[in-house]
Amino acid sequence: MKPIIRSLLDVDFYKFTMGQFVWKYYPDVHVKYAFMNRTKKVKIAKAIDMYRLREELEHARTLKLSNTDLHYLRGTNEYGSPMFEEGYLQFLKNLMLPPFTLDTENGEIRLEFEGKWSEAIYWETIALSIVTELYFEARIAKLSRLERDRVFADGTLRLAEKAWRLKQIPGITVADFGTRRRASYDWQRYAVEVMADELPKHFVGTSNVRMAADLGLMPIGTNAHELAMVLAGIACDSDEAVRSSQTHLLDLWWKVYGWGLSVALPDTFGSDFFFSIMGQKRAEAWKGMRQDSGNPIEFGEKLITFYKKLGIDPKEKLIIFSDGLTVDSIIKCYERFKGRIKMSFGWGTNLTNDLGFEPVSIVVKPVEANGRGLVKLSDNLAKAIGRPEDVERYMRAFGYENTLYQECIY
Amino acid sequence: MKPIIRSLLDVDFYKFTMGQFVWKYYPDVHVKYAFMNRTKKVKIAKAIDMYRLREELEHARTLKLSNTDLHYLRGTNEYGSPMFEEGYLQFLKNLMLPPFTLDTENGEIRLEFEGKWSEAIYWETIALSIVTELYFEARIAKLSRLERDRVFADGTLRLAEKAWRLKQIPGITVADFGTRRRASYDWQRYAVEVMADELPKHFVGTSNVRMAADLGLMPIGTNAHELAMVLAGIACDSDEAVRSSQTHLLDLWWKVYGWGLSVALPDTFGSDFFFSIMGQKRAEAWKGMRQDSGNPIEFGEKLITFYKKLGIDPKEKLIIFSDGLTVDSIIKCYERFKGRIKMSFGWGTNLTNDLGFEPVSIVVKPVEANGRGLVKLSDNLAKAIGRPEDVERYMRAFGYENTLYQECIY
Repeated sequence: MKPIIRSLLDVDFYKFTMGQFVWKYYPDVHVKYAFMNRTKKVKIAKAIDMYRLREELEHARTLKLSNTDLHYLRGTNEYGSPMFEEGYLQFLKNLMLPPFTLDTENGEIRLEFEGKWSEAIYWETIALSIVTELYFEARIAKLSRLERDRVFADGTLRLAEKAWRLKQIPGITVADFGTRRRASYDWQRYAVEVMADELPKHFVGTSNVRMAADLGLMPIGTNAHELAMVLAGIACDSDEAVRSSQTHLLDLWWKVYGWGLSVALPDTFGSDFFFSIMGQKRAEAWKGMRQDSGNPIEFGEKLITFYKKLGIDPKEKLIIFSDGLTVDSIIKCYERFKGRIKMSFGWGTNLTNDLGFEPVSIVVKPVEANGRGLVKLSDNLAKAIGRPEDVERYMRAFGYENTLYQECIY
Repeated sequence: MKPIIRSLLDVDFYKFTMGQFVWKYYPDVHVKYAFMNRTKKVKIAKAIDMYRLREELEHARTLKLSNTDLHYLRGTNEYGSPMFEEGYLQFLKNLMLPPFTLDTENGEIRLEFEGKWSEAIYWETIALSIVTELYFEARIAKLSRLERDRVFADGTLRLAEKAWRLKQIPGITVADFGTRRRASYDWQRYAVEVMADELPKHFVGTSNVRMAADLGLMPIGTNAHELAMVLAGIACDSDEAVRSSQTHLLDLWWKVYGWGLSVALPDTFGSDFFFSIMGQKRAEAWKGMRQDSGNPIEFGEKLITFYKKLGIDPKEKLIIFSDGLTVDSIIKCYERFKGRIKMSFGWGTNLTNDLGFEPVSIVVKPVEANGRGLVKLSDNLAKAIGRPEDVERYMRAFGYENTLYQECIY
């Protein structure tokens, strides 16, 4: 049986964009990441083979990037070139994943990755891919061959239906963001291949670097909440310092990648706060924003209003929607905003794990940096993370007023 | 690309049961077989790659039975043991298929196999498997990968539906008779495997000897119309001689195989004639009959009445239905006759070629024996074969009165 993770490129592209950023400015911050399951009704440790989980995680720790992998990264020019410094590539050449701790607690997995931020950062999607694949394996383990084939047949027909529906709407562009919730590597790869075949104009790429490399597709991604969370966490205790860490992050990111990767992720501490710090110059310079929580229609309207107030033509700006998308929600957003703002869709679970079993909504998030508890608020309190006292402090610091709480399905 | 026919065991089992019979009693009768397409709206020579057809037929001519193939036949004990004489097995050891002639005529294939009956007999299902597979290949050739996957996904779901429906009815037994009309070797094999897995009590075996051998299933089959056709054809010209060839056939078959293979095929010249010659002793001795044309319900009622009139309990007798079956027609027949007579179902095209394309109804039949035109009337005139003057003569000789004409779909 082949292991689930067979290459360190089998991660989301943003791990390298953030990885270089962290390697450059925060290499020795000590970060602890933790696995979390938002699907409360499923006890994952009871559902999956924990022995296999440990084995797969251990196997991932044996992997190193090959010279060809490094060539691929060195040659990546889609967001500016060269985008990865030689020093960073040398660092990657020697990278191996730091240790993990694995345990169970009330039927749930306790899985943590602790170490230098610059090294521990690569665990996130690897751990998620492993857990989600083991969970899917467990769901189909007891099926007969025909029942199993029926699962994939149904999945194929749903995939074909998705492709067909999107084909009807020439302007939509979508990318695969499904590495972390995929049913399996093979199924993700299949979905990516057929999307690329069937929708060459709609399908713009994949966040999975291994698949982008193997299939000649564009690797897609910019950054994630962890940057905002860690930078806020390691700022000194004053509310002002915590807030200003966020503008610092924006400017430092711009300094490294410029326009190429200038898609901001506004919801870490609520997008209202983010709009308040973005400012005229940044709003003009940055390509746009990624919507990853809350109500996408409301967010889109807010963003358009935001740009208009600043005298910026929203038609020149971009929203990337990436929060639990389905064909329905993609088309709904597209129809609502077409001609008003540029859009693209980062399509995850529903693209790579629509095989008839409700997938689990799992994440790996940083929970501590240099010993301090980290917080994410997001535009949906179901996605909030942090110890209660920390969450409260951050809400106050960021003037957080959102009250939306919506169960995460994807 | 692997050839379509890769083993001389990839034929219907009845080719060997009839093959031994012919080898024993009629080895040197000179027979001409011809390919026929009953689906008039399809011009097969236009639809398929004729170059590939020639290549595949030529490849089949290079095949020989292996020692292991012969071991398998020697060890076949399902119908009495030993059922194949050593002399026949030695004959098979050296067997290679005789030449074919291939041409096109008005968009249709002209394909004939001429030679000693004992050697040409093996071409039938081989030629059919090749043509039907090339026809299916041509239908999917222009599809994209996803469209093709959708064809198989739909087929898988239909197969699962078939299995599920039959599973609801514990008493039904079915066998695969689909070699000659299969979408492909692989798809037939898949259908056979999942039927065997899912319905271990319903699915009693396959007519395909290769698959029976590889999967440890029972090889199923008795005999076909060609015996009745050739024996009638080589009888001297009197109506009486033609008629008596049919009782001779029954008694010779019984002499070779006895009870084990005593399922008569009554419709070659109309089943009314057959009932008139069967007689008390044969009706008592033989297991039963195979229904291969006409109305299955009418036939079943006729057969039950036939046995009752002779004072034979029909519950001790067997009908094998094998004419263009679907799950619907299987269940309909089963519900009608359960508890009244034993039944089994030889399920062909709809089992092995239900992939969304209307299959072609093709046959390979003997058309001449020792230079004389052969005839089949059957209980459905759409299945009748022969030159008009010969058909007329046979109708008279056999007192044929049936008028049913029903297009063959499967």
